[in-house]
Amino acid sequence: MSDAPELTTQTVEDIGEFELIERLARFFSGSAAVVGVGDDAAVLDLGGADYVLASVDMMVQDVHFELRDADPGIIGRRAIASNVSDIAAMGGEPTFALTSLALPGTCPVDFVDRLYEGLIHEARLTGTGIVGGNITRTSGPICIDVTILGRVPKAEVVLRSGARPGDVLAVTGTLGGATADRLIRLSSREDKPFRASWTTGQYPIPIPRVAVARRLAERRLPQAMLDLSDGLAGDIRHLCRASKVGAVIYEDRLPISSRTRAIAEDLGVTPVSLALSGGEDYELLMAFSSDDLAAAHEAAGDVPLTVIGDVVAAIGAVTLVAESGDHRELPPSGWSHF
Amino acid sequence: MSDAPELTTQTVEDIGEFELIERLARFFSGSAAVVGVGDDAAVLDLGGADYVLASVDMMVQDVHFELRDADPGIIGRRAIASNVSDIAAMGGEPTFALTSLALPGTCPVDFVDRLYEGLIHEARLTGTGIVGGNITRTSGPICIDVTILGRVPKAEVVLRSGARPGDVLAVTGTLGGATADRLIRLSSREDKPFRASWTTGQYPIPIPRVAVARRLAERRLPQAMLDLSDGLAGDIRHLCRASKVGAVIYEDRLPISSRTRAIAEDLGVTPVSLALSGGEDYELLMAFSSDDLAAAHEAAGDVPLTVIGDVVAAIGAVTLVAESGDHRELPPSGWSHF
Repeated sequence: MSDAPELTTQTVEDIGEFELIERLARFFSGSAAVVGVGDDAAVLDLGGADYVLASVDMMVQDVHFELRDADPGIIGRRAIASNVSDIAAMGGEPTFALTSLALPGTCPVDFVDRLYEGLIHEARLTGTGIVGGNITRTSGPICIDVTILGRVPKAEVVLRSGARPGDVLAVTGTLGGATADRLIRLSSREDKPFRASWTTGQYPIPIPRVAVARRLAERRLPQAMLDLSDGLAGDIRHLCRASKVGAVIYEDRLPISSRTRAIAEDLGVTPVSLALSGGEDYELLMAFSSDDLAAAHEAAGDVPLTVIGDVVAAIGAVTLVAESGDHRELPPSGWSHF
Repeated sequence: MSDAPELTTQTVEDIGEFELIERLARFFSGSAAVVGVGDDAAVLDLGGADYVLASVDMMVQDVHFELRDADPGIIGRRAIASNVSDIAAMGGEPTFALTSLALPGTCPVDFVDRLYEGLIHEARLTGTGIVGGNITRTSGPICIDVTILGRVPKAEVVLRSGARPGDVLAVTGTLGGATADRLIRLSSREDKPFRASWTTGQYPIPIPRVAVARRLAERRLPQAMLDLSDGLAGDIRHLCRASKVGAVIYEDRLPISSRTRAIAEDLGVTPVSLALSGGEDYELLMAFSSDDLAAAHEAAGDVPLTVIGDVVAAIGAVTLVAESGDHRELPPSGWSHF
């Protein structure tokens, strides 16, 4: 055909995910959304008492999961859980989800059945109704796209953009565990000698922090919040950019489990590097006024809440303070998709 | 890893798209949705005065579009237009859309820019705000998944399930045009002799029938409605199954443009076969009480509305009546994705 597009040779790989998303942000101005692109979920006023939250995330075979590593049910559970985590990060609770699958014709029907069992299982656990099930053919890898809808009382929505200099930064749970598991899977494939006790046949299923996020949000405690899907080093930059602030992170305060520390030692890497650059922990990163910290700990209840740093005025600067007191700029080596 | 899934050898290709969707329907019971899976869009009560409509549809490179055939902007426009059509088919109007892209690293940045220009252009034309822009990497074909949200006053939502024996069946516009264009593209690749005047370098962009559907729905005229995305032969079955009815279609009443008739002649196929088995016309198929037909024609205004058949009691039977008066069962040869 004569109208074949003439395209320049620069590829998405050349410019990377974050620059690509920034390039595209210019297209998204002017919608009637309360918050459109740029937070964990869009915030929509559809005429009800609550805001409607909406987010979408795709998992692609060989990028986000590998068939040989995971039961299809686990893949399904992860697909819902990671999306529910985006709703939690707005202070909301999930309501409905739509699933869209691209499947090669050779995909076993059993895979699809078991994938859906996982999707539905996790949806029930999180109070989410699955209301759409688009399926299409592909010549390539399996793609699992989940759109999640949620709700949050209008006064309680928590954005990424509310952090102010002087706030403290805190995270739920522990960091680096998902990356430790990923590195074990990679190492065991290469037949590297490895402690048998670390062997894991499955991807971990994140537990979306909906309940604790709701308790904090209904008390209006977090100034800003997001979920750690790409890794602290990358995600802290999203918070800083949205809030027009900088951050100081103290290495020795990062909550890292003893299991993750032991795996790091076996792998010959520092535990801090796993906590910073690993993704998929799906813990919450929040900024609190220091006056609200005691109330936040109380509201968090059994969920560990650890202060890891401070919000500072220097826009976009993220400083890492080592145990020795040495300072260095934190490289943004979170998980990039390209 | 030891927990590699044990799967039977039956594939999705073996059972086909419609059986696969029926298999999965059992997973979708019990959600709090007013209508979940099985209509053009899910119908959700999120506490506002209107119902919220939600639908998702994925376009995959080499299945739904080919890079050599289309400007990326046209692909983007089609992705939004086809989704808006699903909202129109419920009697609603679109509000917001979320886009999710899987891109190979080698994809030109220009492609993504121009795709988004098309997405945004069509979104503006249809009054849709794009509020999400997930991007991920893939080793396979480009996937463009669009989730669309819409709204409809609660009393005016039109489902597939309301057709009753004695109703008449009508369609908007003309049928078979999109398939005629597809066959031209395929033929011209094979260097078949073909009238130059048919050559088309672009996919047609469907015009979603939002305005006419709203005018009909607000007068509560359609008993049942859906959009013709897979082709009349396949889509009539969706209406019959949902409404637990059968249908009789009269060949000589099918609205087919003179251009489509001429292309059919050139290709050596019957115009009726293009109208029945071709997909992507995105016209509306509706059932009306015969008492409402005059009002429907008036409400349709400039949009052609053509009666093509009758709703009958024989559940699931679709009969095609030829000009000669001969009857035959209509094979369900709509567009299947596997």
